[in-house]
Amino acid sequence: MNFIKTPTKGMRDILPESMAMREYVLNLMKETYKTFGFEMIQTPTVEHIENLTSKQGGDNEKLIFKIMKRGEKLQNGTLDDLDSFVDSGLRYDLTVPLSRYYANNKSLLTTPFRAFQIGNVYRAERNQKGRFREFMQCDLDILGEKTYLAEIELITSITTFLKKLNFTGFTIKINDRKILTKMIEESGLPLEKMDNILITLDKMDKIGIDGVKEELLSLNLSKENVEKYLKYFEKKEETLEKFCESFKMDEEVVKNLKTIKETVTHLVDAEIIFDPTLVRGMGYYTGPIFEIGVNDLGSSIGGGGRYDKMIEKYANISVPACGFSIGFERLLLLLEERGFQIPEKTEKIAFIIKEESELQEVFKEVQKLRNDGKIVKIVYRNKNIKFQKESLEKENYNIKEW
Amino acid sequence: MNFIKTPTKGMRDILPESMAMREYVLNLMKETYKTFGFEMIQTPTVEHIENLTSKQGGDNEKLIFKIMKRGEKLQNGTLDDLDSFVDSGLRYDLTVPLSRYYANNKSLLTTPFRAFQIGNVYRAERNQKGRFREFMQCDLDILGEKTYLAEIELITSITTFLKKLNFTGFTIKINDRKILTKMIEESGLPLEKMDNILITLDKMDKIGIDGVKEELLSLNLSKENVEKYLKYFEKKEETLEKFCESFKMDEEVVKNLKTIKETVTHLVDAEIIFDPTLVRGMGYYTGPIFEIGVNDLGSSIGGGGRYDKMIEKYANISVPACGFSIGFERLLLLLEERGFQIPEKTEKIAFIIKEESELQEVFKEVQKLRNDGKIVKIVYRNKNIKFQKESLEKENYNIKEW
Repeated sequence: MNFIKTPTKGMRDILPESMAMREYVLNLMKETYKTFGFEMIQTPTVEHIENLTSKQGGDNEKLIFKIMKRGEKLQNGTLDDLDSFVDSGLRYDLTVPLSRYYANNKSLLTTPFRAFQIGNVYRAERNQKGRFREFMQCDLDILGEKTYLAEIELITSITTFLKKLNFTGFTIKINDRKILTKMIEESGLPLEKMDNILITLDKMDKIGIDGVKEELLSLNLSKENVEKYLKYFEKKEETLEKFCESFKMDEEVVKNLKTIKETVTHLVDAEIIFDPTLVRGMGYYTGPIFEIGVNDLGSSIGGGGRYDKMIEKYANISVPACGFSIGFERLLLLLEERGFQIPEKTEKIAFIIKEESELQEVFKEVQKLRNDGKIVKIVYRNKNIKFQKESLEKENYNIKEW
Repeated sequence: MNFIKTPTKGMRDILPESMAMREYVLNLMKETYKTFGFEMIQTPTVEHIENLTSKQGGDNEKLIFKIMKRGEKLQNGTLDDLDSFVDSGLRYDLTVPLSRYYANNKSLLTTPFRAFQIGNVYRAERNQKGRFREFMQCDLDILGEKTYLAEIELITSITTFLKKLNFTGFTIKINDRKILTKMIEESGLPLEKMDNILITLDKMDKIGIDGVKEELLSLNLSKENVEKYLKYFEKKEETLEKFCESFKMDEEVVKNLKTIKETVTHLVDAEIIFDPTLVRGMGYYTGPIFEIGVNDLGSSIGGGGRYDKMIEKYANISVPACGFSIGFERLLLLLEERGFQIPEKTEKIAFIIKEESELQEVFKEVQKLRNDGKIVKIVYRNKNIKFQKESLEKENYNIKEW
């Protein structure tokens, strides 16, 4: 028989120490989000293949782990179309399942619905340091709230949680998909090429305005329009209002974003910046978008935005929605780099017993300690007692010989 | 586009109320097992197909959700052998992944290793009430402990946990695989047919001794041997020692089982019964096996046993192991039937605000309450304020208009 002892490619065994850290962070998150009225939900890891390949998930759809049909249904498959053997797949995010969930259970949920979902998602990415094929996402969403209350509550929840982990020095970038659209429109660039234009704009940080210009021109766009478009970004450092004047942005949109920015500024211990180059990949965003970055980390640890049109695709009614997702693995990595330690200190006691020990008595004593919340292990005395004790002491166990 | 709003067949959306119950029970479990020195670990949901189809998993192997290869690797697949398109699958239990995990990480783990794993497992079963295709298992295992300490600690952990849920009236059945084997051997029945004989014996509760006899005879076994075999069970109600006399069971095995039985009896508030018809399905068990049943439930809520030969298949060394698995879904069902309520009572406050409300002030007040651990929601006043208030009150929110 051919047993393989390593995990499947890109997936991980989580060791006890890492697991204790994960649990600590998750518990803190659960406690915090609970005070904001979020309710935990769970969706299946396996989704209908139709829902996963619905062109909502951007590039992630290429990375789906596909699950084969079973039994007789396999007989209808053909080699020309291998997808004919497939009926489901592993979810690549928690947003598609949440939208389906809401459509499916709406009548049983509160309105607005504050949803909190923790779960593994799966993407068959190429091997890369810090990238896993199974990784945890922690999503907060408010469904059925059309006003900025959703955005404010989401940003506040997350920053409150991060603060409890002693996180400091983070920045919240905000922008609005409607602003991104209007700029393209006003500059005369074709809206059909919006996706490509935004992918390029997203690189502003890395390749600078000249790099962006070059790449936009390579998309066969008119030089005049590209220059008009990029000229808007010269006012990047100005206030939100000033920036939006140049392309006659709808006042309601500006006012809405301003309310979010100002309210949050007073509530959280973080810098809130309007960043007109913030794009956020997913095509389903329809309004404000935001991202939380940590100053000493290159990239963000999470982000989100408003997606008012998504649930409509599952349900027959339109439901405004706004969500935020934390990249849990990245957060843990960052905590590790910062040397974060779990504050908890429960006493640990190891009972080393002998053949002659009276088992009943040992266990009675041990039970008492455990009932008091102490962590207790029982082991038989080894021949190499010195090594045995050293190992237990290394695990912070106090030793009691019986 | 073809969106489907129901979950995939046999899988479930977990609603907030059920989820709160799950979280409550899981937290209690985590707290309890922690005091026994168990350490949480996590293994990937996706396993190598080779490990899943290794003939260790019994009937569960027929129910595997298979995952297709990706990219170029698909090109080597052929229609004659659809498994040629497959490289992995969803785990159907937590024992196979644990064995792989231990073999893979042994040098980084403590000895003996007390492992605690919570995770979803997947089985493509036919639709049936109370049976799901994605369901949670909670496994405790002690690896590297060859004595009865493992069995005693496992049984005590689980009963301590169940007691905290106000469970009463449960019975722990114990037996030993070695006893099951010896009885077959001594009665002259062929060991090659052991699996079939045990499947039949397992039905004793349902079909009675006459039913078992009839079924055994239909296996083409000698009538004389079958009668000799079944005669042993006439002493079913006798003590363990008395029962084992008839077929000259090895004294060490009897003494070991007796120690487990007696030590546990003094520690837990439950009935411990030696049941020679207890089989536990999995072929990998090598020693004591046990099962926890609740008197008013037909079947068990969990069980386990010793599997000293399993890890050897992954690692090149022999490691004694003993484990216990709780059927989490069944436990929840039972709690529900018993009308179990989460004891917790955190104050919930809903702020209903108006267009004119001063946002900064509202949020300042809300933040204070949340920092004190209260659950607070903010909503805008609806036109139908009566209905809005009623809904919030139904969720146990105290209302504060602002």
